[in-house]
Amino acid sequence: MRIDIISAVPQLLESPLSHSIVGNARESDLVEIQIHDLRDYSEDKHNKVDDYPYGGGAGMVLTPQPIFSCINHLKKQREYDEIIFTAPDGIPFKQQHANELSLKGNVMFLCGHYKGVDQRVRDALITKEFSIGDYVLSGGELPAMVMIDAMVRLLPGVLGDAESALSDSFQNDLLEGPVYTRPAEFKGMKVPDVLRSGDHKKVEEWRHKTSLERTKNVRPELFKKFRKEH
Amino acid sequence: MRIDIISAVPQLLESPLSHSIVGNARESDLVEIQIHDLRDYSEDKHNKVDDYPYGGGAGMVLTPQPIFSCINHLKKQREYDEIIFTAPDGIPFKQQHANELSLKGNVMFLCGHYKGVDQRVRDALITKEFSIGDYVLSGGELPAMVMIDAMVRLLPGVLGDAESALSDSFQNDLLEGPVYTRPAEFKGMKVPDVLRSGDHKKVEEWRHKTSLERTKNVRPELFKKFRKEH
Repeated sequence: MRIDIISAVPQLLESPLSHSIVGNARESDLVEIQIHDLRDYSEDKHNKVDDYPYGGGAGMVLTPQPIFSCINHLKKQREYDEIIFTAPDGIPFKQQHANELSLKGNVMFLCGHYKGVDQRVRDALITKEFSIGDYVLSGGELPAMVMIDAMVRLLPGVLGDAESALSDSFQNDLLEGPVYTRPAEFKGMKVPDVLRSGDHKKVEEWRHKTSLERTKNVRPELFKKFRKEH
Repeated sequence: MRIDIISAVPQLLESPLSHSIVGNARESDLVEIQIHDLRDYSEDKHNKVDDYPYGGGAGMVLTPQPIFSCINHLKKQREYDEIIFTAPDGIPFKQQHANELSLKGNVMFLCGHYKGVDQRVRDALITKEFSIGDYVLSGGELPAMVMIDAMVRLLPGVLGDAESALSDSFQNDLLEGPVYTRPAEFKGMKVPDVLRSGDHKKVEEWRHKTSLERTKNVRPELFKKFRKEH
């Protein structure tokens, strides 16, 4: 899989894409990630990439020219399965989207910044608009990295143990229950006996029960949906 | 405001906290952010911070000792308003939480990693558990940075124009409508006339109408809620 990211603040993207799971996946050539600085594509003499919004108001808007130039330049080199814009007014990004995107070949991300991007970019170039949640961020770089992390960890060979990704929260519409590790007792707090019993069937039952309980307590709407469908 | 972040992969946090809005806010002393490497607090001779889960299964779990040592060390130095754990099974983080957290004095973030954290940490030390969305990530570092970005941009003096934060999506329960900037015509695509009319009342009406339309199309459940409450 190849991922291209277009950003007006490419420095933001450096460390999260260079360490841990995503960094290791790049080093092992399991994914190629290229970062493009929007300013390199500006025809303005000061490399400007934003301007005031028509109609007035606060905040700056990314101008069409550098984005059209950059995206069209990339599209000439290869076909893209998706060109994604990260925006608070996109559709909510869910695990199902990460699963689907992890099967694609070439994916491009355009990171919004400042007040947003000229609507003509969205109308003419963007194939999917995703929001990672109902809160406002200062740019689309963190959202792009969040989506990329969610996708890349699903690529074959990225996680050491393939089972780990499948047993996570959301992959079966339930939250995971509590986990414990050594020591068996810490500051007077004990690990539940069942987890140390060696009885695999009981462990599985306990995990399913606590998973249902946590989902019911923390996310009642997910619990209702799960009950309906199972 | 002071923010402490505890992580087993502190390198991940570098660039997003050093540039753009959050980086500028730190440089201007509008927020202090300290990063703590969990390994520095491990009493294990190899500085180990994780171990296998009791009951078996894939993935590693953060052990209690380094986290208790680090958090208790920090709590001795100052009082924390919140100690937040970033987890897919936390409550969904929303703009309202960013607004509330931006009014606090000292906030600590513990980033989950690997399969999760020993439940005794969550039971004994954590005051809030937040999830940034219904997808699985390889760690809690990106979620912590997302929440911090959402909080920090609301701090007085951080955004150049205070109005900008208030006019964003979610601050009034609606998505923002389209924005446009120069040029008025680009590749045959024109900016809507009303935005260039200079008629502020008409511009506001257009913005409210397109904001309602986009909310209705992209997030029908938000639109219904808005209609009920307004």
